[in-house]
Amino acid sequence: MKESLKICFSLFFLLFPVLTPVVGQQTLQWSEIYPGIWKAVAGEPEKVTLLKAADVTANVLALNDLPKAGFPLPGDKIDLKIVDHKIYLRFPLVRDEQLFGLGLHFQTVNQRGRILNLHVDHFGGTDNGRNHAPVPFYISSKGYGVLVDAARYITVYAGTGVRLESDDPPVLYDRNTDRNWDAQPYSDAVEILIPAEGAEIYVFAGPTPMNVVQRYNLMNGGGCLPPKWGLGFTQRVPTLYNQDDILREVAEFGDHNFPLDFIGLEPGWHSMAYPCTFEWDKTRYPDPVNFLKTLADKGITTNIWFNPYVSPKGILYPGLKKFSGSHTVWNGIVPDLTIAEVREIYKDHFVKNHIEIGVGAYKIDEVDGYDFWLWPDVATFPSGTSSEQMRQIYGLTLQSMTTSWFREKNRRTYGLVRGTNAGSSSFPYVIYNDYYSHRDFITALVNSSFIGVLWVPEVRSSKSAEEWVRRMQSVCFSPMAMLDAWADNTKPWSFPEVEQAVRDVANLRMQILPYLYTTFAQYHFQGIPPFRAMSLVEGFGFRSLTIEGKLDGTENPYAISIKQDIMDQYMMGDYILVAPMFTGEKSRKVYLPAGKWYDFYNGNLVGENEVIEITPGLDKIPLFVKDGGIIPMMPVHRNALEAEKKLTLEIRHYGTAEGSFDLYDDDGRSYNFEKGDYSFTRLSVSKDKRGRLRGSVSSQVPGKPFSYNNDVVWKFMTLIK
Amino acid sequence: MKESLKICFSLFFLLFPVLTPVVGQQTLQWSEIYPGIWKAVAGEPEKVTLLKAADVTANVLALNDLPKAGFPLPGDKIDLKIVDHKIYLRFPLVRDEQLFGLGLHFQTVNQRGRILNLHVDHFGGTDNGRNHAPVPFYISSKGYGVLVDAARYITVYAGTGVRLESDDPPVLYDRNTDRNWDAQPYSDAVEILIPAEGAEIYVFAGPTPMNVVQRYNLMNGGGCLPPKWGLGFTQRVPTLYNQDDILREVAEFGDHNFPLDFIGLEPGWHSMAYPCTFEWDKTRYPDPVNFLKTLADKGITTNIWFNPYVSPKGILYPGLKKFSGSHTVWNGIVPDLTIAEVREIYKDHFVKNHIEIGVGAYKIDEVDGYDFWLWPDVATFPSGTSSEQMRQIYGLTLQSMTTSWFREKNRRTYGLVRGTNAGSSSFPYVIYNDYYSHRDFITALVNSSFIGVLWVPEVRSSKSAEEWVRRMQSVCFSPMAMLDAWADNTKPWSFPEVEQAVRDVANLRMQILPYLYTTFAQYHFQGIPPFRAMSLVEGFGFRSLTIEGKLDGTENPYAISIKQDIMDQYMMGDYILVAPMFTGEKSRKVYLPAGKWYDFYNGNLVGENEVIEITPGLDKIPLFVKDGGIIPMMPVHRNALEAEKKLTLEIRHYGTAEGSFDLYDDDGRSYNFEKGDYSFTRLSVSKDKRGRLRGSVSSQVPGKPFSYNNDVVWKFMTLIK
Repeated sequence: MKESLKICFSLFFLLFPVLTPVVGQQTLQWSEIYPGIWKAVAGEPEKVTLLKAADVTANVLALNDLPKAGFPLPGDKIDLKIVDHKIYLRFPLVRDEQLFGLGLHFQTVNQRGRILNLHVDHFGGTDNGRNHAPVPFYISSKGYGVLVDAARYITVYAGTGVRLESDDPPVLYDRNTDRNWDAQPYSDAVEILIPAEGAEIYVFAGPTPMNVVQRYNLMNGGGCLPPKWGLGFTQRVPTLYNQDDILREVAEFGDHNFPLDFIGLEPGWHSMAYPCTFEWDKTRYPDPVNFLKTLADKGITTNIWFNPYVSPKGILYPGLKKFSGSHTVWNGIVPDLTIAEVREIYKDHFVKNHIEIGVGAYKIDEVDGYDFWLWPDVATFPSGTSSEQMRQIYGLTLQSMTTSWFREKNRRTYGLVRGTNAGSSSFPYVIYNDYYSHRDFITALVNSSFIGVLWVPEVRSSKSAEEWVRRMQSVCFSPMAMLDAWADNTKPWSFPEVEQAVRDVANLRMQILPYLYTTFAQYHFQGIPPFRAMSLVEGFGFRSLTIEGKLDGTENPYAISIKQDIMDQYMMGDYILVAPMFTGEKSRKVYLPAGKWYDFYNGNLVGENEVIEITPGLDKIPLFVKDGGIIPMMPVHRNALEAEKKLTLEIRHYGTAEGSFDLYDDDGRSYNFEKGDYSFTRLSVSKDKRGRLRGSVSSQVPGKPFSYNNDVVWKFMTLIK
Repeated sequence: MKESLKICFSLFFLLFPVLTPVVGQQTLQWSEIYPGIWKAVAGEPEKVTLLKAADVTANVLALNDLPKAGFPLPGDKIDLKIVDHKIYLRFPLVRDEQLFGLGLHFQTVNQRGRILNLHVDHFGGTDNGRNHAPVPFYISSKGYGVLVDAARYITVYAGTGVRLESDDPPVLYDRNTDRNWDAQPYSDAVEILIPAEGAEIYVFAGPTPMNVVQRYNLMNGGGCLPPKWGLGFTQRVPTLYNQDDILREVAEFGDHNFPLDFIGLEPGWHSMAYPCTFEWDKTRYPDPVNFLKTLADKGITTNIWFNPYVSPKGILYPGLKKFSGSHTVWNGIVPDLTIAEVREIYKDHFVKNHIEIGVGAYKIDEVDGYDFWLWPDVATFPSGTSSEQMRQIYGLTLQSMTTSWFREKNRRTYGLVRGTNAGSSSFPYVIYNDYYSHRDFITALVNSSFIGVLWVPEVRSSKSAEEWVRRMQSVCFSPMAMLDAWADNTKPWSFPEVEQAVRDVANLRMQILPYLYTTFAQYHFQGIPPFRAMSLVEGFGFRSLTIEGKLDGTENPYAISIKQDIMDQYMMGDYILVAPMFTGEKSRKVYLPAGKWYDFYNGNLVGENEVIEITPGLDKIPLFVKDGGIIPMMPVHRNALEAEKKLTLEIRHYGTAEGSFDLYDDDGRSYNFEKGDYSFTRLSVSKDKRGRLRGSVSSQVPGKPFSYNNDVVWKFMTLIK
């Protein structure tokens, strides 16, 4: 009998190897997998996860360069339970701690006190976790981070739940009589519900929140480095434009003396779209090879739109049908991207018909939501990957696939995507959406810096010239300077009364590229995001304003207080603070970090560690530079091809402090920089014996390529009294 | 070895009886459990479900009286899969079918084409399934219904997902060129995701949608029959009022000659509230026994507010602590209501300290949401009931508990609750919330009729006299005529310029009680809801208006069409159509069903099976009566105690058709009607030989009690030419 019992149990585990019985309390075993990054496994990890879908390699060398740090949390306050095939996690919080990340939010920055159900979706107007990049990663103002790697709809209670057995419980107040009563009492924990048998958990050390972000980005391969053309101006054309319309459009950009680096083709290039064929429409694009070559000769790269749902009218349909999910999207099949054969079928077609004939980038649409037309959570896929998992990784996988195709050709790309997730730092894709609040777009830009993604506050149309110029100004100070005219047929000069102001800011974007390109190099080599929330900036602190709630029987029955974050200003790189203006506003507040700050345009001192009120004109976006800031600029030019002529740098210095800037350069197009073909050139400003500022350029390390001539012009912007 | 294998398997099922391995495709076995109601079991049903929490007995006798009907769906088109511990269900749809129910929606009626995640919650401004009564029950316009009994966050794709293998797939259109392209293609199925190992599924036959609703309500015990005082006017007083304040308030109602049947006490009656002690505050209520008696002598019943979270300062705390969940709400413990001992502890205290000294009803607050202060989904409870299940049944269980306490005393109650679920038809509770859109409140009233719940469009405050009178008018044509002044200290006469109009409609409410009480008797005895969506009304059809979507790059990028339901009018009982007016509107459209309709106030014909435009004054709520409609009314009176004097009925008749009305009566207070102590009196209007209408009153069946004298007054409202 004993023997047979043994057999019994062996047999049981043989027959039901994946069943995890209800188990309750467990312990996480942390191991340091990279310097300052620890990993632990909860339950049985799943075959499909976010990081597995992203499939990137950590930049270990760069991780080694970050400050040494020990495990940043009290291990005994981290709690794991497995209940009913679900993971319950708890991490501690202390008073005054703020939390950032957990998705591409549009209306909030500090997530403490919020509940987020992380679900890839189109942003629906409320920050609830459903958005274009619901990355399960949070960064604490105390200088540590936590990532949950599971392709599931994870719910994060970011300091909301209050445990009976809390070490630091909230004070008990009587609402009847005590004005201190608070609808949302103090919570000392982040609690996380992962509806899965298992997950991999990562903890990141600081010491600063920026170090946490750097470790996250470097573990995910470092930030993307776009080709130089990707940082120029781009116009997306109306959906049914044909190749002649586009050539005319390009000529018009010349006539208007407006920069243009790449053109975006919308659904009309497909022989059928929604669902897609991925084949050139013969009536609108009779000769795509020559068309793309003509554009390339003018220095224009081409980006083409698609969504990944395959039309029954397309040649890919028969081959992909058997590998597709149970449900269709707009009558198109949804291929199971976790199957290698599926990825090969896409690759063969896309490389041959797009990339090899000159297409430079993709716009990957509708991999986010809306639920009303995407596959439901009851859909099934041939690999056994659940619908929920597929939803969480679809955009991520498409970025991974397409990036690798371009990489194999040693050509950098820089595209657009509407849904992503954890692990995508290194993918050269910028997120966009259909929501269109200018102010909220800037908040998304702020939040993008926490979670290893890029976001474009794209411009489509405007109700007034004021709105037009304000939107164009801020998109030119974002990862992609884009006008998306797919439906509205707008042009940069659509509002003649502000045409010059729009041209000015687009030209400024082009002039500032040496600075911006270096900022992206920081993203790649050090994991520092190019566009940064103020909370990540040294000397800023973690300001937020609490407005005490006032009881109102219909408007605010729980007398809830409102926390106001700083969400309408951000840093571009190390030195430039951007404070966009919004329609209808003649003035705004700007929060200046510690140190002196100077007006970008005239070099005047504007303040120091304080809140200033500014009333700029319509013609400029308010920009401020840190004391000692060095901004390398180049002459106005229309695109990257023009820039390949050796141009003269104008190097600006602001304020009174000494400073330096390591200017990055490479060929701007290939992946050769990964083999060492790049240069860092130190631009320094120091004081001479008489206390006057002097600029100097060091020799380049390793030295090439370097696109500029050495005949630089130094410009000291601040008048020293 | 064979023997030992046998032992193995026996042992396996002994050790792991609840583990359901991943199984895939399954078949549902339907059995007819009541006439026209079939049940099937999917997977392993759970210990805690909605209907088990409600714990009511079906009214089998009444179910037997409904039309005979066969299984209303093609069984081969119902699909069940069990995948990864989740149930996937599919039910077929046909073209032109509409779906109703699935929650207490505020902005939509027809749910076809929507996705709902059914989750007990405060309504957050969007109809997404999170609301106060997310009942997993839908009614088809084709005359059948489906109920899923699982206390889980069920996702319903109510005709959104499109399967590759659909029998009736949508037409393929090219969005590039075809204007027929639709963002949301035709779907031929309801798909349901139940995140549980099992669920019980019910199918209800019609033939009419109303029959479906009747079967649902009767299976759940039949609709509630409130005490007569519950249908009078109620005022909820400011939260810190003391017993003297309340007696003064009652006197003021007399001074203003305004009806008043019951008073609602808000949190201040507790010695501490948020969390609660459930004990009388000695400073504000030094003598609750005499206070309640004084009110009762004046004919005023008392309702007291609570939320179920127990204060550490209360005497119940020590006894309940060990039976409570892991998390607190406002520092109060959350008792595990699935434990019998917990229910007994509540009962002992509540019966002794409230019910036995005269409290007549409860207002059960905050059993819905918001998530920010309720227990999180990672909370655990001592019984092993999951947090999710607890959330879905908490309000339901409290209704079941409190109803049974009053029933044991043979006293009917009629209270307020903010969260409920399936199975609550028989509970004498009306749902309310903190949202305050007058128009949306009426849509909720419309939707309440599908799912066996009652809803009150409560009045708190208003920005103008117009808003005040419009809100007061519609609340007087709802299940509870309530002014909730807890925060705003408003009175019915707060806007003197409309005081008379407000008094008029409150008095009309009191006059119409014989009709309304009978309407509730229909709810109880036949399962027909007292307030009814037009879609449930014979002769109405299922109108909805589709406004074709217009492409707009920023406002409507998918050119989505909008379906407009009829959601601002409803029936009260068989004869009265209510068409409330909203602030700022001088006129409105009214959709009249088939047959002739007459103005309630003057008996004039207004139309027949058509849409009319009306421009009523501020002083009246538009009401219309069906041809042949008989409305028994009584004299103006201030409360149920006054009404116990035998009063004379005024019986109105509208139109030119013969008709009859079975007037219900009983003692209005006890459950003796369940033992047969009630009367149905037939009021008939027929034509005499000369074609003139004559009214007659039949003897009562069974005959008593009957609160009116037999000396009725007939009033023929429509002038016959």
